[in-house]
Amino acid sequence: MTSDVRISVLGTVPAGGRGFVRDLRVRWALEEAGIPYAVEKLGFMAERSPEYLAEQPFGQVPAYREGDVTLFESGAIVLHIGEKSEALLPRDPRGRGRAISWLFAALNSIEPEIWNFMMVGLLYPDQPWREDARAIRRKQAQWRLRPLAAHLADKEWLEGRFTLGDLMLVSVLRALRDSDLLAEFPTLAAYRARGEARPAFQRALAAQLADFEDQPAAA
Amino acid sequence: MTSDVRISVLGTVPAGGRGFVRDLRVRWALEEAGIPYAVEKLGFMAERSPEYLAEQPFGQVPAYREGDVTLFESGAIVLHIGEKSEALLPRDPRGRGRAISWLFAALNSIEPEIWNFMMVGLLYPDQPWREDARAIRRKQAQWRLRPLAAHLADKEWLEGRFTLGDLMLVSVLRALRDSDLLAEFPTLAAYRARGEARPAFQRALAAQLADFEDQPAAA
Repeated sequence: MTSDVRISVLGTVPAGGRGFVRDLRVRWALEEAGIPYAVEKLGFMAERSPEYLAEQPFGQVPAYREGDVTLFESGAIVLHIGEKSEALLPRDPRGRGRAISWLFAALNSIEPEIWNFMMVGLLYPDQPWREDARAIRRKQAQWRLRPLAAHLADKEWLEGRFTLGDLMLVSVLRALRDSDLLAEFPTLAAYRARGEARPAFQRALAAQLADFEDQPAAA
Repeated sequence: MTSDVRISVLGTVPAGGRGFVRDLRVRWALEEAGIPYAVEKLGFMAERSPEYLAEQPFGQVPAYREGDVTLFESGAIVLHIGEKSEALLPRDPRGRGRAISWLFAALNSIEPEIWNFMMVGLLYPDQPWREDARAIRRKQAQWRLRPLAAHLADKEWLEGRFTLGDLMLVSVLRALRDSDLLAEFPTLAAYRARGEARPAFQRALAAQLADFEDQPAAA
């Protein structure tokens, strides 16, 4: 299938990162919107070309190209795809505003606290105070997840119907993996599972994993 | 001046927070766009009404209302204002894409690391390992600020002309206050000062500070 849309992805990644690289969010959005895409594979630790750094100043993935439009940051790319597809972004002003609010909430209010909790072990590998830091970070994450669970309550999606806000929030919650922190919030765990069960997510995940197939199982 | 636009702000805040509450970003965007607005003052620690939590699920400020459109998250609100004004958001697809990419970069790639560095003292007030944590967080922030400074180089704004990406990035850099971390990156310090010197920023700052005038100097 030919496409004007090209995204950068990682061609190699340590085994634990497979299925969690951020191009997955973009693949998922493209699958929900029914837009085909091509990938450009970059090495995990390889030096980036000046051309790539001009497109993606931090040297990370994903970057998105479509004609002379170039985007970086998974949030900006998912929003751009949403502009093309009502499957991701409602067309009425009120629904559009709520969906975009949740997109930013996932990235600026929720993800940093989840990330801080999950990264304690990586940031402080040998520090004797690591578990103290983890306990404090756990409280900070709970402080964000509690109102989120209260808002979701027994709704299927944040605002009734699935939007790019749900896509991003489910993606962000996935970073908790099988942490017992998510188990404290059963409605959020079920919500994440609903997102992951969507056929578009499953196609996106399979496509990311397929790109690592020629790699050794443990890298 | 009457306006359809209403934003929630804090009517009380500890002295050190004045001039740094996040409604400032929204006031600044509205000033750049020339859009008048009304404010609704909330107490710093006051309990939020169910109606407010329905609009802003985390109970924070700012929330934005315009007719039946309600938005939360400063990023979503600034983007919405950008859709109304070319002063914030270029109309050509390439320029629009770059500006929105920087908006998300400011909020998801830069702000969390700056925030983590600045919050060490608040998160770990009595922990003997506080300075170890600060040193690690400092390195993490440098890891983000270095490519940012490399991209900005000697440009006045991130993509040549001022956009909402600059508005948000300057806002995020302001959280470093007078930390010596910013002094390591003189081009970024000068960039922040250029943003703060804009008349629209100065009007927005004066408006936020004026709302605290009836408070005691130290709260």
